[in-house]
Amino acid sequence: MASIPLKLYSNAAGFIEKIRKIGEEDPRRIVHSTKVGLALTLVSFFYYFRPLYDGFGQAGMWAILTVVVVFEFTVGGTLSKSINRGCATLLAGALGVGAEYLAGVCGERGEPVVLGLMVFSLAAVSTFTRFFPNVKRKYDYGVLIFILTFSLVAVSGYRVGEILELAHQRLSTIMIGGATCMIISVFVCPVWAGRDLHFLVAGNIEKLAAFLQGFGGELLAYGGDESGKNVEKSFLKGYKSVLNSKATEESLANFAWWEPPHGKFKFNHPWKQYSKIGALTRQCACLIESLNAHSNSKSLAAAPASEFRTRIRQPCVEMSAECGKALAEIAAAIKGMRRPPQSAESRVQSAKSAADRLRGMLRNSSLPQKPDLQEVAPLLVVASVLIDVMKCADGIAVAVRE
Amino acid sequence: MASIPLKLYSNAAGFIEKIRKIGEEDPRRIVHSTKVGLALTLVSFFYYFRPLYDGFGQAGMWAILTVVVVFEFTVGGTLSKSINRGCATLLAGALGVGAEYLAGVCGERGEPVVLGLMVFSLAAVSTFTRFFPNVKRKYDYGVLIFILTFSLVAVSGYRVGEILELAHQRLSTIMIGGATCMIISVFVCPVWAGRDLHFLVAGNIEKLAAFLQGFGGELLAYGGDESGKNVEKSFLKGYKSVLNSKATEESLANFAWWEPPHGKFKFNHPWKQYSKIGALTRQCACLIESLNAHSNSKSLAAAPASEFRTRIRQPCVEMSAECGKALAEIAAAIKGMRRPPQSAESRVQSAKSAADRLRGMLRNSSLPQKPDLQEVAPLLVVASVLIDVMKCADGIAVAVRE
Repeated sequence: MASIPLKLYSNAAGFIEKIRKIGEEDPRRIVHSTKVGLALTLVSFFYYFRPLYDGFGQAGMWAILTVVVVFEFTVGGTLSKSINRGCATLLAGALGVGAEYLAGVCGERGEPVVLGLMVFSLAAVSTFTRFFPNVKRKYDYGVLIFILTFSLVAVSGYRVGEILELAHQRLSTIMIGGATCMIISVFVCPVWAGRDLHFLVAGNIEKLAAFLQGFGGELLAYGGDESGKNVEKSFLKGYKSVLNSKATEESLANFAWWEPPHGKFKFNHPWKQYSKIGALTRQCACLIESLNAHSNSKSLAAAPASEFRTRIRQPCVEMSAECGKALAEIAAAIKGMRRPPQSAESRVQSAKSAADRLRGMLRNSSLPQKPDLQEVAPLLVVASVLIDVMKCADGIAVAVRE
Repeated sequence: MASIPLKLYSNAAGFIEKIRKIGEEDPRRIVHSTKVGLALTLVSFFYYFRPLYDGFGQAGMWAILTVVVVFEFTVGGTLSKSINRGCATLLAGALGVGAEYLAGVCGERGEPVVLGLMVFSLAAVSTFTRFFPNVKRKYDYGVLIFILTFSLVAVSGYRVGEILELAHQRLSTIMIGGATCMIISVFVCPVWAGRDLHFLVAGNIEKLAAFLQGFGGELLAYGGDESGKNVEKSFLKGYKSVLNSKATEESLANFAWWEPPHGKFKFNHPWKQYSKIGALTRQCACLIESLNAHSNSKSLAAAPASEFRTRIRQPCVEMSAECGKALAEIAAAIKGMRRPPQSAESRVQSAKSAADRLRGMLRNSSLPQKPDLQEVAPLLVVASVLIDVMKCADGIAVAVRE
């Protein structure tokens, strides 16, 4: 029986450990939580202060609602939702008042029918527009709020007398709520989606670089002594996350579009370039995935290494290492917002010349009398994939330079 | 000047064309839009009918709000949001009333301070929990509503006298709104996320199969006559979409978790298996991506084909075609909810034996006197990647059988 409190304790300890880990992974999460609390407390002054409450009454509720729904982790997310919400409310409110007026003309009995028809058709059409890819990407939330506000205004106008005053109150509280969110998210420890995107893309290139450098080292180790085999192979795992980074990257790029210029990110920052680089990076990661299948294969390490294999291996090692270094330099340049240095280009060049050397070697090779093709094959595969990786790295370098 | 109306006309025609295309791509989108309109019209009866309005008053607004926000394209999405919303409202409402009572004890001056502190801390803590991966996946919306309802109830309780009645009215209208959505989405032309997931996974395997079969055919064509070269190569593009299917697959799997048993999908349907199959499919697509880099390479088609190359090509063609057929059979079995047929397994077996034959050939090959390694290399690469693809296909077959 004594084990139950013990178990509870260990569960609680595990939970606290988990919280600590999530907080440590990105301390801005804790700051963000505090910011949401702060914004909510601020807008609840609508209720606490007599003069404010006398002015807005129950409409203060809309400020709270807006803050809770609109406040996102990144500045871009918050701005996109606030602006969408504000514009949609304005537009739908005006339309709703118009619809209400129109329905009023149709007399006591016709009014609910006309209102119902209008709400139905507008909701159906707006919902359909949410399937348009470009609407979905940027204005999805705006359309949602548009349907909501239009229905609320049109329908409640049927019962509430002073619809204009009601609309005015709601609109102003929503604006105040949205403005509170925007100000807090921009000025209190802002989390810029653009900056995150920037470092995500650079980090992904870095992971590829780490893999290629590590892979080159491993190839080399197989050639010579076997002592390097027990080395930590964490670099082999890093690139996996690159393969699945597309969704994050896309949402960050969408949010970044909404952000004002900040820090080193000027107006008209080429956000589109990031998705291009990102796509190339993922393609490269894909090639690396098939390379990785070989990094563990026994056949690469098979002893005794014939003289021929040693000769092929050399350019492979060079290509892998040089590409890796070039990518690492490019990633560093992106992080520092510099143009990629000349040395990165020359590294790509030397990788290319290694590839040429390899090709020449294959063409004019004086093969050993009875070559074991099965023994050579894996190396050839590695070489060919590395050539593709090299082309990809070249593409990344070109894209970054733009 | 006459060109302006013409331009407008062509723009409008292009727009209508786009609408038609989106509707045709998935006709359920049109049905969904109508369903949203219907649900909204239904809940707006709260305002139109005197007896209903007398009972609920302005709280009818919450039913409209719930419908607009909760109604999603798939049944799973709607259920997940409705249930999240209902539970969160209930819990937060009760907590809010409690907080209000507690604050009331602290006297006139202390009340807003205590309320403010509670709102701040609860909002901050709840926002932080949204960063937990498993909370984010399934209960993100619930936590949002929890913060919203708690703040609204606690804060407006400061001003509104009959908080219990208010809470009761709101809760019941939210429940009615949620129930309307659930009933309409389940019983009127339901769009099951589980079914979509099922066909997405099967379709992805089919795309891989189409590529492999097409690739096999192309290899063969290069070996013999060149007439096949102008053949439609659309199969080469299909697999690209597989690479980026992870995000869609994950959200569908999350929604499918909420859905009740329906059609052929029994209770306890192994949804987790789908993500396993999906991951294998993407890995296979990745290998195919690097294979595709070679399908266009000139060197594969280089004439004259030596006798040795022709001999290596044969098992490659076989592996590609057999794997493709096996995958196609597996996809068909998934679609029909059957166990993969015995023939799929035997096809994988014959692909394996082709690979073995190739290995043997490489080991004991009587090479031509001066083999042009550069000429042979691409084929060796293709062979090796195909062997990996084959292993992947085998993995998929095993996963599907479970």
